[in-house]
Amino acid sequence: MPVERGLKIATIGGGSSYTPEIIEGFIKRYAELPVKDLYLVDIEAGKWKLEIVGQLARRMVKEAGVDINIHLTLDRREAIKDADFVTTQFRVGLLEARIRDEKIPLRYNCIGQKTTGAGGMAKALRTIPVILDIAKDMAELAPDAWLINFTNPSGIITEAVSKYTDIKVLGLCNVPIVMEKMTAEILETAADKLRMDFVGLNHLVWGRAAYLNGENKINEVITKLASGNFRGVKNIPDYEWGTDLLNSVGMLPCPYHRYYYLTDLMLKEEIKAARNEGTRGEVVKKLEASLFELYKNEDLKVKPKELEERGGQYYSDAACDLISAIYNDKGTIHYVNVKNNGTVNCLPNDSVIERTSYVGKNGATPLNSDPLPSQIKGLLQVVNEYETLTIEAGVHGDYNAAFQALTIHPLVESSIVKDLLADIISENIDYLPQFKVNN
Amino acid sequence: MPVERGLKIATIGGGSSYTPEIIEGFIKRYAELPVKDLYLVDIEAGKWKLEIVGQLARRMVKEAGVDINIHLTLDRREAIKDADFVTTQFRVGLLEARIRDEKIPLRYNCIGQKTTGAGGMAKALRTIPVILDIAKDMAELAPDAWLINFTNPSGIITEAVSKYTDIKVLGLCNVPIVMEKMTAEILETAADKLRMDFVGLNHLVWGRAAYLNGENKINEVITKLASGNFRGVKNIPDYEWGTDLLNSVGMLPCPYHRYYYLTDLMLKEEIKAARNEGTRGEVVKKLEASLFELYKNEDLKVKPKELEERGGQYYSDAACDLISAIYNDKGTIHYVNVKNNGTVNCLPNDSVIERTSYVGKNGATPLNSDPLPSQIKGLLQVVNEYETLTIEAGVHGDYNAAFQALTIHPLVESSIVKDLLADIISENIDYLPQFKVNN
Amino acid sequence: MPVERGLKIATIGGGSSYTPEIIEGFIKRYAELPVKDLYLVDIEAGKWKLEIVGQLARRMVKEAGVDINIHLTLDRREAIKDADFVTTQFRVGLLEARIRDEKIPLRYNCIGQKTTGAGGMAKALRTIPVILDIAKDMAELAPDAWLINFTNPSGIITEAVSKYTDIKVLGLCNVPIVMEKMTAEILETAADKLRMDFVGLNHLVWGRAAYLNGENKINEVITKLASGNFRGVKNIPDYEWGTDLLNSVGMLPCPYHRYYYLTDLMLKEEIKAARNEGTRGEVVKKLEASLFELYKNEDLKVKPKELEERGGQYYSDAACDLISAIYNDKGTIHYVNVKNNGTVNCLPNDSVIERTSYVGKNGATPLNSDPLPSQIKGLLQVVNEYETLTIEAGVHGDYNAAFQALTIHPLVESSIVKDLLADIISENIDYLPQFKVNN
Amino acid sequence: MPVERGLKIATIGGGSSYTPEIIEGFIKRYAELPVKDLYLVDIEAGKWKLEIVGQLARRMVKEAGVDINIHLTLDRREAIKDADFVTTQFRVGLLEARIRDEKIPLRYNCIGQKTTGAGGMAKALRTIPVILDIAKDMAELAPDAWLINFTNPSGIITEAVSKYTDIKVLGLCNVPIVMEKMTAEILETAADKLRMDFVGLNHLVWGRAAYLNGENKINEVITKLASGNFRGVKNIPDYEWGTDLLNSVGMLPCPYHRYYYLTDLMLKEEIKAARNEGTRGEVVKKLEASLFELYKNEDLKVKPKELEERGGQYYSDAACDLISAIYNDKGTIHYVNVKNNGTVNCLPNDSVIERTSYVGKNGATPLNSDPLPSQIKGLLQVVNEYETLTIEAGVHGDYNAAFQALTIHPLVESSIVKDLLADIISENIDYLPQFKVNN
Repeated sequence: MPVERGLKIATIGGGSSYTPEIIEGFIKRYAELPVKDLYLVDIEAGKWKLEIVGQLARRMVKEAGVDINIHLTLDRREAIKDADFVTTQFRVGLLEARIRDEKIPLRYNCIGQKTTGAGGMAKALRTIPVILDIAKDMAELAPDAWLINFTNPSGIITEAVSKYTDIKVLGLCNVPIVMEKMTAEILETAADKLRMDFVGLNHLVWGRAAYLNGENKINEVITKLASGNFRGVKNIPDYEWGTDLLNSVGMLPCPYHRYYYLTDLMLKEEIKAARNEGTRGEVVKKLEASLFELYKNEDLKVKPKELEERGGQYYSDAACDLISAIYNDKGTIHYVNVKNNGTVNCLPNDSVIERTSYVGKNGATPLNSDPLPSQIKGLLQVVNEYETLTIEAGVHGDYNAAFQALTIHPLVESSIVKDLLADIISENIDYLPQFKVNN
Repeated sequence: MPVERGLKIATIGGGSSYTPEIIEGFIKRYAELPVKDLYLVDIEAGKWKLEIVGQLARRMVKEAGVDINIHLTLDRREAIKDADFVTTQFRVGLLEARIRDEKIPLRYNCIGQKTTGAGGMAKALRTIPVILDIAKDMAELAPDAWLINFTNPSGIITEAVSKYTDIKVLGLCNVPIVMEKMTAEILETAADKLRMDFVGLNHLVWGRAAYLNGENKINEVITKLASGNFRGVKNIPDYEWGTDLLNSVGMLPCPYHRYYYLTDLMLKEEIKAARNEGTRGEVVKKLEASLFELYKNEDLKVKPKELEERGGQYYSDAACDLISAIYNDKGTIHYVNVKNNGTVNCLPNDSVIERTSYVGKNGATPLNSDPLPSQIKGLLQVVNEYETLTIEAGVHGDYNAAFQALTIHPLVESSIVKDLLADIISENIDYLPQFKVNN
Repeated sequence: MPVERGLKIATIGGGSSYTPEIIEGFIKRYAELPVKDLYLVDIEAGKWKLEIVGQLARRMVKEAGVDINIHLTLDRREAIKDADFVTTQFRVGLLEARIRDEKIPLRYNCIGQKTTGAGGMAKALRTIPVILDIAKDMAELAPDAWLINFTNPSGIITEAVSKYTDIKVLGLCNVPIVMEKMTAEILETAADKLRMDFVGLNHLVWGRAAYLNGENKINEVITKLASGNFRGVKNIPDYEWGTDLLNSVGMLPCPYHRYYYLTDLMLKEEIKAARNEGTRGEVVKKLEASLFELYKNEDLKVKPKELEERGGQYYSDAACDLISAIYNDKGTIHYVNVKNNGTVNCLPNDSVIERTSYVGKNGATPLNSDPLPSQIKGLLQVVNEYETLTIEAGVHGDYNAAFQALTIHPLVESSIVKDLLADIISENIDYLPQFKVNN
Repeated sequence: MPVERGLKIATIGGGSSYTPEIIEGFIKRYAELPVKDLYLVDIEAGKWKLEIVGQLARRMVKEAGVDINIHLTLDRREAIKDADFVTTQFRVGLLEARIRDEKIPLRYNCIGQKTTGAGGMAKALRTIPVILDIAKDMAELAPDAWLINFTNPSGIITEAVSKYTDIKVLGLCNVPIVMEKMTAEILETAADKLRMDFVGLNHLVWGRAAYLNGENKINEVITKLASGNFRGVKNIPDYEWGTDLLNSVGMLPCPYHRYYYLTDLMLKEEIKAARNEGTRGEVVKKLEASLFELYKNEDLKVKPKELEERGGQYYSDAACDLISAIYNDKGTIHYVNVKNNGTVNCLPNDSVIERTSYVGKNGATPLNSDPLPSQIKGLLQVVNEYETLTIEAGVHGDYNAAFQALTIHPLVESSIVKDLLADIISENIDYLPQFKVNN
């Protein structure tokens, strides 16, 4: 990656409403991260969005006075060829598919969530064939490039790539950063003064320690959190954990733990929302529509504040920081989805975990983790096996694996699995070539 | 254990309605297992039952013409002193406590079951202090004796003894034998022609293989089971598993898997039963009352057929076979609850597993298990951590451990844990000295 | 394997001087093990031996009045086709190769032994291509047959088959049986009253426990052994272990442990023997010549006593017992070389260990092993990695793996490795096609 | 550790000739590491050295114009009380003991080396009681202090503290730094541009990767090393590894690997040296005498160049860097001896490994290690078990453990163990209270 040339970055799903975030991220870091060519790639169905957000991106870089060429293309292979980094933020089946992921489980009185449980599995089944295809293109056209995956369920998608390809891949999520920022707020300090010990799986990650000036403040964080107000990520309702739950866990849960620890409340909230303002996907759809209206405004030359409502804050910071840490061989700590390889001894070596990692030009090395206590170990293990089964189902179109993935998932009541899975497969069949072949 | 003397056996909870089973077992095996003194021990509150069942036991041995002295006593230490085997079938808090274990969770729309989930945890919390006390007596009065535990939750109780004492202990359950007999029936063969590969935890055990003449017939068993009728243990309603579930698991589930695989149906059944004939505990209470009426009949000199309705069939066969295999150094295969020690690599060494084991005078050595497939691994791991936490709670009165045990258990919806646990502790407080000390 | 037909057995290396042992074994067990066709297979160079020993075998079965057809053939595929069991007792390169295995290391003042260290590695490198070829034939011609391997180094050869083929394989060695018989002698009891807990690798196996009537007598065995005389296998000189060594190990070493525990004495003895009566291989060569002279005698109709001098006593008992246990689905304990699969947690899953195992028609399941103490763990681990590297070298002709196998082996001083390995490869090159291809 | 007060550091074995190194280290880093009080502690027998080196230390700080108070004391407890860091560079039994450690094994034609094998074990046995005593003082008088151990065998001593106390401890060695500097030299770059992946045990550590600008250059390093000249640490003769050895290992061995990979050459060199200039200990004794002569010179106000001949170069850099990284919460990479805790999966959790670690105020977290290849795994495992046994022997005076430690060590021929161990114990008995009690 010679600096002379500048970097080539390909962003798959470049028509996403999130794109201005990452553009802003590259602009802010232009001095240290000399991006020369940014390819925003989308599919035919997303072309109109790509056009709008692409023009905004061009106005943004022009306004910032940085020399980044924004390329808009439907030709993924052109974008990937010789890229230094490929980032993925695409969504197979568009928002309509996400809304289905939310609504199908609700029919069965079951949590419908785009990243875990039944909804997450559906999304994974749709996404795995596409990501493996991208990885195949990369192996051919840009074998040294890094794949930085944000596409949810980020851990599962990263694990599928890690298990079934030789591509260099890291998964990213904004959840750890959101948690770190919240922890900083609780401790009335700056996030960069903290060093967090995160361990778990994507969207099932715990803050095990929060070191401030070398001292682990996690108990103080928990105590204050138990008595106060925890503002998590935008797209999850803000319920109280309860003192006993927090004390007995003894570490900081992530926002998505609400699905596990407050299942019934979350389900009721989902049902209510579906009846009123719509599922989160439906809300996002409206939000996106209005965002694209905003983006069309030719006077808009910076990332609009309204994007923050969307729920993915800090994504661009996380992604650009990670890319810069790799590019500049920084030797800094990042919270990434990375092959376990024994870091967490109670999970298989080939699973992908979310973990505090040390990042340089050679990639991310997870910091070793102390053995996990029972209260988080059991939950991680069962969800990890759900993920393993989901990947098998996603790669091979293995119905039995999909059936058991749902059966053992803590958020899915077992007796609904057969009907639920039938709905998932039949209503997503256009995006499930692996199941077509097998059925 | 010199044969000359004959064996001394102490049965704790000797006033149980099950006692005639074990008496019958000893009578049948008298030639190979020369029991001389059988001490039936109970507590003051069970004295009337002890008297009735004790007299029946005496009539049974007299009728059979074997020279077993039946001793009835409330002095546990006298019974344990110099015993060769101590068997446990006691129930702390009597049937009233079991009925509470069933009813308290139902208040929260949660499975109430005496061996797992919320009910099982409550039973474990009551039983652990007593079993550790018994083990303490054994260490002092009969340090070479074997403790053969049937008291439920059998795996957890055995694990508590294994972790916190040096007593030689094995846990027993009739479930594997029931499964083996059913498998034999399905394959239209005799149970003793089969060799089953059981692996899991007590009441969460799978039949991984069924060798008939060296060939693993488990797929045939599953196929036939899927299409036919599975008559499991008496005390669990008989639901169909469904072909897809069975095929995707790929091994034989145990009857108690219904709570995990058919949660909602089982819950509805429990609720209905509670409203109509009563919970299983309430039914058993009536059954027991009528059994004791029967037992009073001085003309009754054998185990009455009605006992089979009670649900614990084959217990005596399992127990007496195991005792005889140890006593006679048989080198035969038994299905027991035994310290894992690496047998199942994805569970901790110090957990107690239910496993096909080789038994001789030196005890039970589990046959090594192949690595487990995802669909049973995840479920086992999370339930194993629930068990670990339950034991910590039971031994140390650790509220946080109890809280998390319920939180991670697949059958307990997390948002009810606080209230549910408060009810469990307050309504069982007379039997929970460890929690009194701590609160 | 329908009984009607009787069993077909193929013995590769059938011209071996050991063959009368296995013939005797089949004769003794004819009632329970109805062998109908026994194919003795050899290569052109061994044809004369095959003829001699084959005629003796025919006289033996005739004399015994059993209906076993002895077939003598150079056509391995004909022998393997539809066989029920294939046994291997061949020696690639004949005794000349063994003598080289002993003499080449001696040039470098290094133990030369046919089953471990430099000599064992050389033998493994020659044998692996042949055994994989046999396994390939079996996969095609007798896919359900069991391969019972005696060919040394038995553990390594069995592991090569286990790792690189799908053939059902078990490795056998007479060492555990010799140790059991010696233990019985020390305890003044019969071997069949003992149950031994053997754990380790082939020719590096320890007797961890010796249960007599349920009691572990290993300490008594060690104490008596330390003060008395241990008559091990015939082909290893009889040195005293010393009390401190035995007490600090705390278990029964195998005869081959002398190479590890008394290295210098063994080396001196080897050097002296090489100068005087010749290496063990040279002695055996003379012994064999005189055995074949004996075998020629048409009046000889039973296994001659002189064969016992040869050193492989109990091989036939071990082999025929194992075959019968499988064929008759006996459910008995045997000491075999079998895939580890987690039995010994500190060794890799895919290593082959020597272990007390439970044997039925479905094969051998190792009894789980308690975690190993440091004094045997470290030695096992390093020798296991030597074996792993040797297999890689043997299968792929990987010079680096061979180099490191010798480098880390405790019996090979590292600075001689380069020259030693050069000699091994060049002097065995006719039998090392995998190295020809690579060099 | 409030900055206002400045740091208190206690250096046990402060009379060492190395002390000027660490003084220089603190002087160089005074701006970032405000040491206020440095206690140099020694025992009565070392008082004269303490006086000499202490006066030099005072002249050095005065010359440098930094405000560090040098305290010279024989009262260890006074020095430890409220210390922020305790460093250890003491030598139980002085150089005379080291010379014995070298000479006793040589009697038996066995490598005599102060950090591994027989000599290392002897040193560990003498040192363990003292270090545990220091840790006990720390627990009482400075429970929050870090123990930074340089005392050899550094890994074993650190592991003894880690296993048997609750003190915060890290072990240090200059070997990784020497290797890193050599690697930089080979690659013609600066050491701070490299990021090395070190994995192993102290004095048995391999450089698995050398990242330069994100690329792993280890193969280039090995190739150049194989063809050129490797200048390792001063106190080990400079032998050629040989191309085949280096290529087959595939990573960078440490200088002490010569004892394992070139055993015979090293032994011959030791024997020759013992006959001529004396063992390394004898040479060092003379060197030290002349150093102390130098130190006496009141005009000497800086670390003399001659100290570099002594062999411990970069020690002070390593130690002061580590202390500063902790004190300043730097988040930088250091190569330290730290509890394994699953980092290297094929070694026990409670072993201490030498590993690339991330260091901040909360201590050192090892970077997770990929599974090890066979060629280093087996050697590490057996030496690790030697270390485990040595610690058991050192803590409990367990003769059997000491016997087996030597028996399994690759550098000790087994048949000499009894006599060798007898000599070690009897000639060190004044420093082995644990063995006095037990014998």
